[in-house]
Amino acid sequence: MGNIVKQVAVLGSTGSIGRQTLEVISVFPHRFHIIGLAAGKNTALLAEQIKEFQPRFVSYQDRKAGTRLTKAEYEFLSLEEIASHPQVDIVVIATSGKWGLKPALAAAKAGKKIALANKESLVMAGEIITSEAKLNGAQIMPVDSEHSAIWQCLEGETRKAARLILTASGGPFLHYSSAQLDEVTPEQALRHPSWRMGKKVTVDSATLMNKGLEVIEAHWLFDMPFDNIKVLIHPQSIVHSMVEFIDGSVKAQLSYPDMRLPIQYALSYPERLANPQLPRLDWEGIKELTFESPDLDSFPCLKLAIEAGKKGGTYPAALCAADEVAVELFLSGRIKFTDIARLVRQALEEHQSISHPTVEEIMAADNWAREKVKQLVSRDNP
Amino acid sequence: MGNIVKQVAVLGSTGSIGRQTLEVISVFPHRFHIIGLAAGKNTALLAEQIKEFQPRFVSYQDRKAGTRLTKAEYEFLSLEEIASHPQVDIVVIATSGKWGLKPALAAAKAGKKIALANKESLVMAGEIITSEAKLNGAQIMPVDSEHSAIWQCLEGETRKAARLILTASGGPFLHYSSAQLDEVTPEQALRHPSWRMGKKVTVDSATLMNKGLEVIEAHWLFDMPFDNIKVLIHPQSIVHSMVEFIDGSVKAQLSYPDMRLPIQYALSYPERLANPQLPRLDWEGIKELTFESPDLDSFPCLKLAIEAGKKGGTYPAALCAADEVAVELFLSGRIKFTDIARLVRQALEEHQSISHPTVEEIMAADNWAREKVKQLVSRDNP
Repeated sequence: MGNIVKQVAVLGSTGSIGRQTLEVISVFPHRFHIIGLAAGKNTALLAEQIKEFQPRFVSYQDRKAGTRLTKAEYEFLSLEEIASHPQVDIVVIATSGKWGLKPALAAAKAGKKIALANKESLVMAGEIITSEAKLNGAQIMPVDSEHSAIWQCLEGETRKAARLILTASGGPFLHYSSAQLDEVTPEQALRHPSWRMGKKVTVDSATLMNKGLEVIEAHWLFDMPFDNIKVLIHPQSIVHSMVEFIDGSVKAQLSYPDMRLPIQYALSYPERLANPQLPRLDWEGIKELTFESPDLDSFPCLKLAIEAGKKGGTYPAALCAADEVAVELFLSGRIKFTDIARLVRQALEEHQSISHPTVEEIMAADNWAREKVKQLVSRDNP
Repeated sequence: MGNIVKQVAVLGSTGSIGRQTLEVISVFPHRFHIIGLAAGKNTALLAEQIKEFQPRFVSYQDRKAGTRLTKAEYEFLSLEEIASHPQVDIVVIATSGKWGLKPALAAAKAGKKIALANKESLVMAGEIITSEAKLNGAQIMPVDSEHSAIWQCLEGETRKAARLILTASGGPFLHYSSAQLDEVTPEQALRHPSWRMGKKVTVDSATLMNKGLEVIEAHWLFDMPFDNIKVLIHPQSIVHSMVEFIDGSVKAQLSYPDMRLPIQYALSYPERLANPQLPRLDWEGIKELTFESPDLDSFPCLKLAIEAGKKGGTYPAALCAADEVAVELFLSGRIKFTDIARLVRQALEEHQSISHPTVEEIMAADNWAREKVKQLVSRDNP
């Protein structure tokens, strides 16, 4: 099997994960071929990528941009059509926010190998997507560094994990008091100490909302009760996560923070490929790895997310949507950093959740929460 | 297969590893049954163990002691006979020093599952034992915490490990200068900071000879070139070892220092068993894990062992034997701590190695090195 070229579709190819996926694929032209590319509004970069990778299928949000791209010979398809196309072996879902949900579901129904970088699809619709994947033989391969670490640690084990330990860098405001957090600016929030990522996820890392979303993802990916998922602050971002087994043995996965490793592992799984571009840990430079418990009082988003995950229904969808709007408001200077958690909490308190929701009900909860946060802010600042 | 009772023979049942093996087995009476016990000279404890576990086969070194043990109904066999008996499923080889070699070889030839705690057998005769194991379908399952860690990290992987990273506590004299080491006493050397073990291995941990022997073992167990085995000082003894894969990803195995975990893993492999007696890592108490390179000038035994391993032939056997005699001389107060490395080096310098030696040639090298060290010491102190 080692030498068959896998046909890869990258949804969200112009984002941070999408670009790094293409970088990895370029190292292994005899292993992977780009059959599909999809982007949002960055049609300039998409045009370059189409030129370089010559995909058969292309999708983009900004239909007007089509005219710039017509010279290439490709077929325009929707995200769901690409994600479920018979010629596609692996679907990389790196679209942002709720736009990942429907293609993830389409890929699950089509029994694809899904390299999943989009958090929202599992957070919002974990029950639907994992059950469809099971039913149709699809395999969800996590691309997040934390879930990839857990997946790597579980490989070859009889799966009787006792506990998952998700590590978190703690973000730029580790050890800040609530009063200090009141004063932080978007510029400060965007300066992440160890990872370079998109704006939304960088702010989510600073509030620890990101870690909360990852707890919900881990719950669905590894069928693990919430009470057996522990979050541990580890500022060096070397240990990406750990698994404790029933005999008390713990396995950890380590590397420098570099998303190309989990991307490549998902693409090459169950093999590993030698990639000279990926850095090796230099133990002369790593003096210590430190660990501490998260401060849930100063970073309430983590607690809010875990509570929403435990409650289930449409709470996680409302959480995601409320957070997305709140983060946008913070980045545009309209609210304070600490307002993000407050607005999310207020929205969740008023949310009428639906158990075992359909995709439509999930999308409705998303809409409701967006409107609710906007309404709460207008009320505060009339 | 989960419910078949495995018939276990424990060679060296009265030593530290042997006693802990019986402790683990007592927790799982429906999984493991003791079919054989063998001890050296501690016949009082052996008599108790026979009473408790009622083995079919028994062996002991001190034949005169037989009269104390006749009441139990067992068959007296040699170590090799027990190790290769058709009714034995798993042979735990926890005999000390060179006494492990012949039973390990017998078990390898008989295609047994070998839970190997004895270091010397692989160090002295790694080539012979691993090739016999391969030829006869025997499986060597390491019981050392470091090799068990590596084995656990390799589980399920396609075995393309790039590098092994063996951790070492550094022993009680970490950061001592050569001048300070000149003055240390046997009492100080026997006070290991993290592990409770037999006297010989405790002193070997203080000189780092133990880590050198483990590098040689790792070379044979995992078919890894010496240059791809790195030793890293990690005083907390929580990370027991690590594996770096070809994509740069590193896996580590962690637990508190407790030999019952690697013993149990070897017995239950490929399963893991829930044992409430084994401690769980408490992350509230683990603040930091530190790492540093070993000081080869102050601890030359590590270098001597790796060099002997690389040269091969009968060098490793001579190393083991010279070290054993030197450690005895140190413990009896006849030589200084720093003389251990000096005597081992002098013996190795004069050793005439034989390539691809037979077991007899290995045993002859062992005898030669013992005599050589005694002779060197008499010459120094006439």
